Amino acid sequence: MNATASPDEILDRLGGAARAAAGELAGTDRATRDRALQLAAEYVRDERAALLQANARDLDAARERGLAGAMLDRLQLDEARIEGIAAGLEAVAALPDPLGRELARWSRPNGLDIARVAVPIGVVGVIYESRPNVTADAAALCVKSGNAVILRGGSEAVHSNRALYHALAEALEVSDLPAAAVQMIPDQDHALVGALLRAHAHVDVIVPRGGKRLVDRVQNDARVPVFAHLDGNNHLYWHDSADPAMAIDVIANAKLRRPGICGALETLLIDSAAVDELPKLVDVLTGRGCELRGGERARAADARIGEATETDWDTEYLAPILAIAVVDGIDQAIAHIARHGSGHTDGILAEDPDAADRFLARVDSAIVMHNASTQFADGGEFGFGAEIGIATGRLHARGPVGLEQLTTFKYLVRGSGQTRA
Amino acid sequence: MNATASPDEILDRLGGAARAAAGELAGTDRATRDRALQLAAEYVRDERAALLQANARDLDAARERGLAGAMLDRLQLDEARIEGIAAGLEAVAALPDPLGRELARWSRPNGLDIARVAVPIGVVGVIYESRPNVTADAAALCVKSGNAVILRGGSEAVHSNRALYHALAEALEVSDLPAAAVQMIPDQDHALVGALLRAHAHVDVIVPRGGKRLVDRVQNDARVPVFAHLDGNNHLYWHDSADPAMAIDVIANAKLRRPGICGALETLLIDSAAVDELPKLVDVLTGRGCELRGGERARAADARIGEATETDWDTEYLAPILAIAVVDGIDQAIAHIARHGSGHTDGILAEDPDAADRFLARVDSAIVMHNASTQFADGGEFGFGAEIGIATGRLHARGPVGLEQLTTFKYLVRGSGQTRA
Repeated sequence: MNATASPDEILDRLGGAARAAAGELAGTDRATRDRALQLAAEYVRDERAALLQANARDLDAARERGLAGAMLDRLQLDEARIEGIAAGLEAVAALPDPLGRELARWSRPNGLDIARVAVPIGVVGVIYESRPNVTADAAALCVKSGNAVILRGGSEAVHSNRALYHALAEALEVSDLPAAAVQMIPDQDHALVGALLRAHAHVDVIVPRGGKRLVDRVQNDARVPVFAHLDGNNHLYWHDSADPAMAIDVIANAKLRRPGICGALETLLIDSAAVDELPKLVDVLTGRGCELRGGERARAADARIGEATETDWDTEYLAPILAIAVVDGIDQAIAHIARHGSGHTDGILAEDPDAADRFLARVDSAIVMHNASTQFADGGEFGFGAEIGIATGRLHARGPVGLEQLTTFKYLVRGSGQTRA
Repeated sequence: MNATASPDEILDRLGGAARAAAGELAGTDRATRDRALQLAAEYVRDERAALLQANARDLDAARERGLAGAMLDRLQLDEARIEGIAAGLEAVAALPDPLGRELARWSRPNGLDIARVAVPIGVVGVIYESRPNVTADAAALCVKSGNAVILRGGSEAVHSNRALYHALAEALEVSDLPAAAVQMIPDQDHALVGALLRAHAHVDVIVPRGGKRLVDRVQNDARVPVFAHLDGNNHLYWHDSADPAMAIDVIANAKLRRPGICGALETLLIDSAAVDELPKLVDVLTGRGCELRGGERARAADARIGEATETDWDTEYLAPILAIAVVDGIDQAIAHIARHGSGHTDGILAEDPDAADRFLARVDSAIVMHNASTQFADGGEFGFGAEIGIATGRLHARGPVGLEQLTTFKYLVRGSGQTRA
């Protein structure tokens, strides 16, 4: 690239090309976009030797920099993971077309016919860390929904990402889709991330995919709207009327199935009227290696519960640790969530339908659950087919961000010569 | 107010109170919110003498500062305008409840029942200029949709706004709604506007209502999402197949009914195959005092058309001036709009349904019209009952912003003890 161009100039060029490509892409039909994704899957499979070679370079560099087990594992590709990437591209191609859906339609007394129809958002920026599969997943969701995408992966995966990108670019070209529909930021200069976050003239929304530090930086610095969640400090409230066996089952699953995902349970609020059931839960959780921290009343109910400090109520452990607070009634539970929750996913365990209704109505989180594990907070589990992330912002996309959330709408007004009086 | 508090501290206090009020408001029922608006209408009528007195103070101060006719007119209240404000409050109360609507609902194979339901956005900031009625209109739309609102009116209307605000506050109090559901920024210090634009922890969206300078400043400085349009550089494309009499009728209405509104037509694109009809249009428009500016080909078709420069294609005149460009076919028209349009409202005049379909599909504006005047780009004309503004941003609200656009959604997931495998 031009070594004398500033980061803003580079983004101006990429962004301008993306905007033009988005205009073209919006006018393509579903079959063309799907075919490009199917071709990309084919190319990914065909080029798996080159992909493994590129990935080996990334792994070598990572080992030299002393990267540890889980970090290295996230970066690694193998035959199975490459097949997973290809199958993912095909799966997105097979999803229903999110474009052109008539979201609403009505007539006015003067005969005007007004329709709200789904159209692409335009240009999406995706900033992600070490998993190379995000290159293909994010590009697939964007192309399927008619959006141009500007990708910026982690520097540790630069060769793997570039190899995947070449498969995608080839598929676009063969399908007669604009090459700039999928672009990668040309080098790993951090200043280019800053320029992407400022590029509101060209980029309509940024999706950060990665750890807290990345999401925090993106949310703080972006002048472009962001679809992201920073924290998933999720709660379950054990109401007096809950079936204890079901409650224990759901809590253990919500906390321990995968403690590291954003939908994992972090704080249990148990009603003082149900606190006699706590030891049975503690049996199960401690038996599965979960650390428990609670306030005075929780510890009085079961001595195996350690001491929680004020910061525990605001902590997303992402680990096999559960905070437990005893509350007096549903309104205290709702107030605790309003104060300490992060608006991601919160639920009630109850057989009493009035309690469930009250909780569902009053808790203001992206996802509010009744008698279900918080680990269902996921686009796939919602039936979206695939998701690009989860959003806890309140506008446009809230909760899992799938194909529908990557669209916006326009109004089509059809008349027969109407003028306004 | 506390003279030692910084602008950010003042907004922190107002915003914190607004957030708490929004939480309470979201739990209220429709009847309570409607009753508060009806009461507010009553109080506005009861207190019209005090309102006129407060308004007289504003008018005196404005005259002293040398404010001119139209500015003074916008500021002025009289019996009829006060009745209009009261009737407006009642009209919003009578609109359907935008909250609790089930936007989608489906079941998953595991038995989970998932619903997407409409909830308030939360806290809305409204920044407006001299029209005092915006105080009541904006507050009514926000309270009706369960949002808390922080109002910041123009300094020239400060006494009128405060008097209206007192009627609203009294109505909230008598209705047992939280006082902080409607708040006014306590003084006219400009630094407080800056603090409001930065208050993303407390404010979910800002709506600027006023001239270009205000909207431009808000869009540039806000760290909070904004629902606004800066320009309405709207186009009509006269296709070869258009009925000439209908085309002339619609163009004259779109341009001249009220040239100063954001939905007014600014550029006519006439197909070269229809250019013989141009003199008839020029007859009508010049006969009604409209200035015409065109390129070489337009001027060759009618010598009464003056010369357009490159800047004319990007200019929102908001005046009885029309730019006219001759284009060769629909794709040139679409390309001209993509390059020069502002994404507000653009339309085609055509009898050929294929041409209309192509234009509606390819033009990427908030509102795309077929055989109708662009002056219909208005929430009232769309049947929204009332609007707080028009948005040309692409996310969440696009086009007229009415009650539905002042809501967001959450997911309610109902289970019977489901755990994730």
